[in-house]
Amino acid sequence: MAPRDPKDGGAGDGGGAGAGAADPEADIETPLLASSSSSFFLDPAGEDGDDGADERRRRRRRLLLGSHTQSNTTSQVALVGADVCPIQSLDYELIENDVFKQDWRARGRGHILRYVALKWALCFLVGALAAAAGFVANIGVENVAGAKFVVTSNLMLEGEHGSAFAVFLASNFALTMLAAVLTVYVAPAAAGSGIPEVKAYLNGVDAPNIFSLKTLIVKVVGCIAAVSSSLNVGKAGPMVHTGACIASILGQGGSQKYHMTCKWLKYFKNDRDRRDLVTCGSAAGIAAAFRAPVGGVLFALETVSSWWRSALLWRAFFTTAMVAVVLRALIDFCKSGRCGLFGKGGLIMFDVAADYVTYQLVDLPPVITLGVFGGILGSLYNFFLDKVLRLYNLINEKGKTYKLLLAATVTVCTSCCLFGLPWVASCKPCPTNTEEACPSIGRSGNFKKFQCGMNEYNDLASLFFNTNDDTIRNLYSAGTDDEFHISSILVFFAASYFLGIFSYGLALPSGLFVPVILTGAAYGRLVGMLIGSQSTLDHGLFAVLGSAALLGGSMRMTVSVCVIILELTNNLRMLPLVMLVLLISKVVADAFNENVYDLLVRLKGFPHLEGYAEPYMRQLSVSDVVTGPLQTFSGIEKVGHIVHVLKTTGHNGFPVVDEPPFSDSPTLYGLILRDHLLVLLRRKDFVSSCTASALNTSKHFAHDEFAKRGSGKQDRIEDIELSAEELEMFVDLHPFTNTSPYTVLETMSLAKALILFREVGLRHLLVLPKSSTRAPVVGILTRHDFMPEHVLGLHPFLFKSRWKKVRLGGSHVGAGNDML
Amino acid sequence: MAPRDPKDGGAGDGGGAGAGAADPEADIETPLLASSSSSFFLDPAGEDGDDGADERRRRRRRLLLGSHTQSNTTSQVALVGADVCPIQSLDYELIENDVFKQDWRARGRGHILRYVALKWALCFLVGALAAAAGFVANIGVENVAGAKFVVTSNLMLEGEHGSAFAVFLASNFALTMLAAVLTVYVAPAAAGSGIPEVKAYLNGVDAPNIFSLKTLIVKVVGCIAAVSSSLNVGKAGPMVHTGACIASILGQGGSQKYHMTCKWLKYFKNDRDRRDLVTCGSAAGIAAAFRAPVGGVLFALETVSSWWRSALLWRAFFTTAMVAVVLRALIDFCKSGRCGLFGKGGLIMFDVAADYVTYQLVDLPPVITLGVFGGILGSLYNFFLDKVLRLYNLINEKGKTYKLLLAATVTVCTSCCLFGLPWVASCKPCPTNTEEACPSIGRSGNFKKFQCGMNEYNDLASLFFNTNDDTIRNLYSAGTDDEFHISSILVFFAASYFLGIFSYGLALPSGLFVPVILTGAAYGRLVGMLIGSQSTLDHGLFAVLGSAALLGGSMRMTVSVCVIILELTNNLRMLPLVMLVLLISKVVADAFNENVYDLLVRLKGFPHLEGYAEPYMRQLSVSDVVTGPLQTFSGIEKVGHIVHVLKTTGHNGFPVVDEPPFSDSPTLYGLILRDHLLVLLRRKDFVSSCTASALNTSKHFAHDEFAKRGSGKQDRIEDIELSAEELEMFVDLHPFTNTSPYTVLETMSLAKALILFREVGLRHLLVLPKSSTRAPVVGILTRHDFMPEHVLGLHPFLFKSRWKKVRLGGSHVGAGNDML
Repeated sequence: MAPRDPKDGGAGDGGGAGAGAADPEADIETPLLASSSSSFFLDPAGEDGDDGADERRRRRRRLLLGSHTQSNTTSQVALVGADVCPIQSLDYELIENDVFKQDWRARGRGHILRYVALKWALCFLVGALAAAAGFVANIGVENVAGAKFVVTSNLMLEGEHGSAFAVFLASNFALTMLAAVLTVYVAPAAAGSGIPEVKAYLNGVDAPNIFSLKTLIVKVVGCIAAVSSSLNVGKAGPMVHTGACIASILGQGGSQKYHMTCKWLKYFKNDRDRRDLVTCGSAAGIAAAFRAPVGGVLFALETVSSWWRSALLWRAFFTTAMVAVVLRALIDFCKSGRCGLFGKGGLIMFDVAADYVTYQLVDLPPVITLGVFGGILGSLYNFFLDKVLRLYNLINEKGKTYKLLLAATVTVCTSCCLFGLPWVASCKPCPTNTEEACPSIGRSGNFKKFQCGMNEYNDLASLFFNTNDDTIRNLYSAGTDDEFHISSILVFFAASYFLGIFSYGLALPSGLFVPVILTGAAYGRLVGMLIGSQSTLDHGLFAVLGSAALLGGSMRMTVSVCVIILELTNNLRMLPLVMLVLLISKVVADAFNENVYDLLVRLKGFPHLEGYAEPYMRQLSVSDVVTGPLQTFSGIEKVGHIVHVLKTTGHNGFPVVDEPPFSDSPTLYGLILRDHLLVLLRRKDFVSSCTASALNTSKHFAHDEFAKRGSGKQDRIEDIELSAEELEMFVDLHPFTNTSPYTVLETMSLAKALILFREVGLRHLLVLPKSSTRAPVVGILTRHDFMPEHVLGLHPFLFKSRWKKVRLGGSHVGAGNDML
Repeated sequence: MAPRDPKDGGAGDGGGAGAGAADPEADIETPLLASSSSSFFLDPAGEDGDDGADERRRRRRRLLLGSHTQSNTTSQVALVGADVCPIQSLDYELIENDVFKQDWRARGRGHILRYVALKWALCFLVGALAAAAGFVANIGVENVAGAKFVVTSNLMLEGEHGSAFAVFLASNFALTMLAAVLTVYVAPAAAGSGIPEVKAYLNGVDAPNIFSLKTLIVKVVGCIAAVSSSLNVGKAGPMVHTGACIASILGQGGSQKYHMTCKWLKYFKNDRDRRDLVTCGSAAGIAAAFRAPVGGVLFALETVSSWWRSALLWRAFFTTAMVAVVLRALIDFCKSGRCGLFGKGGLIMFDVAADYVTYQLVDLPPVITLGVFGGILGSLYNFFLDKVLRLYNLINEKGKTYKLLLAATVTVCTSCCLFGLPWVASCKPCPTNTEEACPSIGRSGNFKKFQCGMNEYNDLASLFFNTNDDTIRNLYSAGTDDEFHISSILVFFAASYFLGIFSYGLALPSGLFVPVILTGAAYGRLVGMLIGSQSTLDHGLFAVLGSAALLGGSMRMTVSVCVIILELTNNLRMLPLVMLVLLISKVVADAFNENVYDLLVRLKGFPHLEGYAEPYMRQLSVSDVVTGPLQTFSGIEKVGHIVHVLKTTGHNGFPVVDEPPFSDSPTLYGLILRDHLLVLLRRKDFVSSCTASALNTSKHFAHDEFAKRGSGKQDRIEDIELSAEELEMFVDLHPFTNTSPYTVLETMSLAKALILFREVGLRHLLVLPKSSTRAPVVGILTRHDFMPEHVLGLHPFLFKSRWKKVRLGGSHVGAGNDML
């Protein structure tokens, strides 16, 4: 170990002055700049320390305040679900050390076949279980919400409006509280849609419990309760999280706690295979939520995942095909009425294929108008959502009771709206030429009687007094131009727009997708009514296009939303119109702000690594951002020193440098991971002297011992007890060192280093000196070092050039990959 | 320049002993290993040399013989269209030299806005022009083939069978010859589907003329002629090539030859932006061919492109949306009969939505059978195609006349088949309950009279005596179960299966997509007839599923074929069945051989860089494959030496090393490109002495001067004339050197270096020494060094371990990225 301070080189008692992380002079004195960045992760050593806790509390405060401060996204914590949690990076690099290579060579054809078979089997399981979860959620919502509406409707029929309201309010309140209590006390990670968490995971950021079994169960149960409680929340987002949870749990390779590990599953104990599985899982989630298998694949591709390969496309497609098959079988099973109130109102599938859709040139202006205002409304949606979430974070931060109080407030307000607003609508006489019963008695149907007399119906109640799915179906259905009054649609639009915004940030599972579709459908009908006389299009078609416009304006997805809408409505002829609306609304909305998922990821403080470099990064070289002292190990290192370093730093990777007499000059041997060091220390396979002879420990280790643990789990140095004698011994790190770490020269531009880091999916990137006269490695770059906030914090003068970035057409065009 | 042989260091007269490339001792004596690999490209110096020509002839011979020799894919030539051409690598790396940085800093908001606006404008143009080209091709085919069928049918009606055959044969012969002569004499690159060439280009392999204007025109005209000539070829593949041509020509930044350059367009003079445009262009091609905008995007994503970003998805989507809009407008224009015979038979869109498709569990066994045999037939298709193409290559190699003779033979045989085979079918009485005229007179219609009497029709003629589009529509149409006799379908299936295989390799524009769809439709009907009694499905639906099965078996695409089929048939309800069939047929076929595009790319000898590493690459380090002496330049280099090196090597990138007195020790400054050196030499901005003072030439250069020239164009050192005096002068390379080249240590495993090379899209990867006592750079890796054939050639003992690879489920599972 070349330029280490001698004072802590020998001692290694773990009680040193913390020379590693705290010596400010190291920066100046030695050519070894290093990276404080590796401490980006969960710092296991500092968990109970006072300073660390204080700092974390401050960060948490900042995070919850949602202030756009620089340290926001670069801190070690993020808002996961409803709670602030420590996060850490994932490692997609292949750790090519001797142990791995031995294992690799030992693998025969049988191993590989087993691996492949297992991979497909897991995809099948993910698809089947995600479909089952989606089906359970649907049956749950249809039955719970259905029962509620039946009881309330019957009371309304009997004229007992007061008790109807009481039942409605009480059941909504109870359901919301059930969801909130479960979320707050059992699995805070299950709050929200979960898509930001999945997106962050697939970008390489892990957090405890995001994919735990508890989270999965609370997500499904909470989602049923929340959606049934008439809150304006959706189940698509939670389904994505559910699919990802299922995939992650299956890919964890069994459970050591319950002795359910199996030799077969060991192949999946790494971040790469888990990433693939979670990607398939999120695709399965959307496929299960909307019965849109192709849309699910495209959603995962376009929105959620950060890395993609052709083989993955094909596997995700297989997964969603399984979802479709299993869903189909389950629905067939329910056809005979075995699933209670589950019926037509079940899984979303709105047939607007009834009429042959034609459109002429004259229809284009209304459609373009729809797109433009959809873009504006969508970006406003994001704007309001941002403000409301910041406010909610402030309230949620005060404690669990406040979270519950907030949820209670919103559900009471929502119930009052849903029950109160229909009273402002006048009763409409039933149409005579309809096939449907009017007014419709029972739970579904377009013609809710509500307070009206016989042969009348309340059009606003038909919208408010239904599950979201049924309301969307009502709005989408063709040939219903006269069914709704314009004032009713206007009231409904405004109510669902704001209820959606106020419902999302509560501490319970809630999706954004369905509220946006619903609001968009109302918006589309409204536009259709306002300017519809100039167009030949049906208002139901306007509703579909309105949904597309608002989705385009808020989520900014293109191909996936397009396909999802087509699969939802089962009508391919609308494709050109849907594409047009999406293009326009996305372009318009991109002029104002970012898409809702990026907004949420930022708001939650996840250090999301973008695939492009900011323009100012071209002006910096790698050496401009590498900071702090670097900790290195010798090829044969003293146990005490390793323990000391692991205890005093939060770094997760350490360069291993061979020095004379083991090499002619100090030479970089490779990179060793904290996890692997912990395994070594736990095994206590030490030698007493620091000589080259008699060092051949690698044979004692199987590759599985170094397998990566499941999401959110990590070993701690504190759990390993070593005697004073053992601390004085040595350990040969060579067989466990990754001899092929990725490297850059210190003169490399930061932008190009970022591209390498991101494209290859790294956790550590070693920085080599330009001049051969210096130490063989001068620093480590981690995710943290590429975060704009960190870079701009180090070089504030670049801040103005940051705004060279132009956001147009959704692509960050000032950015390296795109621009020249 | 550190360890260069003094004898050629000073001389630099260009006539030295070629010490660079030919000195075998350099390998042993000096620590500077280098890469012969950079000579992978078109070697401009050796173009007229005897040895070079000989070697090239040998390679060409090997290539055309299609032997699986090792040098096949690593040679400097590939089969582009119908001719063997030199190829070279593309460079997606950002060349960050001083000139670039100056230009970068000078860019304001205006530049960026202009760039973005232009990017979208180009996408719009690509979409519009691709749609126009697709439309022209369609109108052309419909009118030419239509006229031919009208004349022939009329003669048949009059009973003049002999003259009908003569007209049919003569017109087919003339059309085929037109296509073949144009292709052979004007633009050989236009032969075939062009998809392998586009795929290779998007993987980073360029060849002259693949995207030239001549190629574009010949492709469109030849495609019309070839398809009209009743050859069993499609127009989807040529449309992809056409779209890519349009994109590449537009992205070339004007034409210097015709002084049509413009400041605005300069931003696009680099390989990255062109890659994006060509990707959008190929998506537009499929969108125009099938009117399948979403399918086009997915096709480009899944099959053609090697790199993909979210921003590109969105731009490709925009492009195909424009295709849809323009096509729609053009079709509307034609509705009033202004386009001759263009009508219902025009752009493919087969409506099978007439009936509400339902399927039960009992339908699954037939569908699964369809998938299994579809997979087998598809892989057999690839197998036969491979054999036939090798045979054709042997014939085509003999000269242009042979190419024409081959095309003539195949068209005569095809015409004989099409005209002769219907005679074996017995006439069927016209159905009484049909709305259509029977027998149909004129060009389209399901009931061709052919030789039959009144009120009879020949079902085989209805299939053979039509354009492919019409035949597919006939086969897809619902409620026609009794229209065709099983023997007719069987004859048609066999004929179109083999005609498709024998028609593809001719020297004329020809696609594979439509023949496979057609054959698959016949296959599906056949299966439907054989086992259809056990199923409730319509035979038209079986035909659709049969197409999917054969496409899955031959092309192995999944999501894109699925979406294309759905868009073609406008029926979303079939989605689960189509997915199922595709999954099964792909899995079955993958067990036998590779997909047809990979096969073609390999057969044509393109050095396609896969996204995964072969398992044996893990056993090698980078230093195991770096070979040959390395040429480096000093920071301030003698002009004569540069000229000498450029003339005697084919390398395209040279490390620049600073030596004392410019630095303390030999230090790597960066990498300079051949193209940039040529610009410097042409500008003759030399200095007389080799001192650090008074060197500041970069101000004289604008960034555009270093812009990358269009596809297939390259400057040559031979075109630059320098006086003896100038050769003795010096040039400062610093401002033109890319100071941020990507680097790996020589101990890096080859597999991981490949991942870096491929993911970041490099042309050159510098290899650094592990020990600091050696020269600062020890070699350069290029595409060639990662080719399995090259690696296995150097390390033959690895050959057996190569077969550790298991091909299952389409993913190379032994491969690094997938495995562990």
